[in-house]
Amino acid sequence: MAEDETPEVQQLPEIIVLGPPVVFETYEKEFCSKFRILRPWESTLPLSEFLLAHAQNTNAALCSGYFLLSTAVLRHLPSLRLVVTTSAGVDHIDLSECRRRQISVANASTLFSADVADLAVGLLLNVMRQISAANRLVKNGLWPKTGDYPFGSKLGGKKVGIVGLGSIGLEVAKRLEAFGCIISYHSREKKSFVLYPFYRDILELAAISDVLVICCALTKQTRHLIDREVLLALGKKGFIVNIARGPIIDENELVLCLQQGLIAGAGLEVFENEPHVPEALFSLNNVVLSPHSAAFTMESLWDSYEITSGNLEAFFSNKPLLSPVLDK
Amino acid sequence: MAEDETPEVQQLPEIIVLGPPVVFETYEKEFCSKFRILRPWESTLPLSEFLLAHAQNTNAALCSGYFLLSTAVLRHLPSLRLVVTTSAGVDHIDLSECRRRQISVANASTLFSADVADLAVGLLLNVMRQISAANRLVKNGLWPKTGDYPFGSKLGGKKVGIVGLGSIGLEVAKRLEAFGCIISYHSREKKSFVLYPFYRDILELAAISDVLVICCALTKQTRHLIDREVLLALGKKGFIVNIARGPIIDENELVLCLQQGLIAGAGLEVFENEPHVPEALFSLNNVVLSPHSAAFTMESLWDSYEITSGNLEAFFSNKPLLSPVLDK
Repeated sequence: MAEDETPEVQQLPEIIVLGPPVVFETYEKEFCSKFRILRPWESTLPLSEFLLAHAQNTNAALCSGYFLLSTAVLRHLPSLRLVVTTSAGVDHIDLSECRRRQISVANASTLFSADVADLAVGLLLNVMRQISAANRLVKNGLWPKTGDYPFGSKLGGKKVGIVGLGSIGLEVAKRLEAFGCIISYHSREKKSFVLYPFYRDILELAAISDVLVICCALTKQTRHLIDREVLLALGKKGFIVNIARGPIIDENELVLCLQQGLIAGAGLEVFENEPHVPEALFSLNNVVLSPHSAAFTMESLWDSYEITSGNLEAFFSNKPLLSPVLDK
Repeated sequence: MAEDETPEVQQLPEIIVLGPPVVFETYEKEFCSKFRILRPWESTLPLSEFLLAHAQNTNAALCSGYFLLSTAVLRHLPSLRLVVTTSAGVDHIDLSECRRRQISVANASTLFSADVADLAVGLLLNVMRQISAANRLVKNGLWPKTGDYPFGSKLGGKKVGIVGLGSIGLEVAKRLEAFGCIISYHSREKKSFVLYPFYRDILELAAISDVLVICCALTKQTRHLIDREVLLALGKKGFIVNIARGPIIDENELVLCLQQGLIAGAGLEVFENEPHVPEALFSLNNVVLSPHSAAFTMESLWDSYEITSGNLEAFFSNKPLLSPVLDK
């Protein structure tokens, strides 16, 4: 890649792009006007060899939420001082290794919270009011032939348990209050700034809720937090929406509960083994699926370019990061 | 039907059921415990002959929004004093004839407003965030094969024009404010109880709006209120949702504008010639269709039974109607 580089480009600060993220593909020209880009995905070399050959002096990396930034990858980037991820979640980055090596990490912060909360409500409305099922019925020309479309469930008055009352959870709560839903929540600690009832015990929250909306980060503590017992406590009339991370729900158990009618329906934006989705979900009318694209609006993509390039520029000019997760 | 009637049933107040409405089919037993039911749809006679033979002394009728209660039908019901419709809209009833004959009319009032507003927001989220399209992509197993799913549009900050700020329009506005939308409205008259900007001119509202949500009643004045000119003013990035009545939009022009990309997308619950929907809409990814079922939730169906039977009982015991549209 170096052959066609102008002297101007060679003087730009160098970053390695891993993935590459959608925002990089979309705003490549803008990134290239600010940074000299290392592009391992264009090389025939395996990643580790590429890093050894080209990235031994590289100080900054840009990655998406899909790129697993493991200890092994970090080991091949000995000069790394900053990781900027285009995602809000940082569960794909080995944070303890970054901490040990004093590598700073910046994320999308709350940039996507409104869009993700919008999709959470969209999925809930879709599955409770059977919007995709109705759309299929009409588009297949079946309306004049059947009066037998299924009745939906009313949102108003439903008890919604928010699991994880961070930035996204709060946005979901605000929206669902406007629909007349009654909000409670579970999180590690009670939040002093809200009046919603707090449930330390997830099982207790599931038992009193008509709907669970999963909005927490994926950590060792939240992996399979939603297990069979929680799903059974949510019950036959209960709906679940997950816009957080797939492994927070035990996916095998979720599929069984949906197949057996042990819960009423699900709206799922994330899965345990993306982009692979259990095929058993494809034929279920009470399940609406989304390809981990909650943050993908044209408007947020531009905002995402601004915050990622802003974090990189701040780093290279020794200014404070815009949205640090770890700051050395 | 008279043969197997017990003396107890014969003493119940008589109503004629026209349609029959879904709420009657669902709660038939409950209706039958309170009223003696005339069932023209079970007879081999044409409706007019059935009415001449059986309903000359009948004082009360129950109908759905789908049953056209024309002057001709009313003429065959000379003793009619009350019409109870299970719908909120009364455009299927010849109101001026009812007024002339001093026949009272009762409707569902605001019973369905929350459910209909929920569906309006659900359709808008669906079409702007491409939820049904994403669901199809994942359920067809295409996620691992394509990264090429379409980007949606962000709701936050969008200007939403509500056409008709009645009970449903206000509920839609309340919900969309929680998503960060900016509300304006058009109606016959400025409402003193809201601060949203009022546009007397629908064209002007369309021109400043990113989204139009149609929530007004169908009248002579609102038929084809949304014509080609209004759609062009809404523009290429504009979305439209109709949960009111099909003929408020010029459907032919809407189809053309959607096909030609002159507006961005539509969420449609109602159509000009239900249950027939223009086939050109079936293949459009930027259109989400619903079979006029916004009021169909299990919870509202029971409420609907209560208000319709309550209106009938009030009439027969000379009490004020619960939800009069016309009161003699």
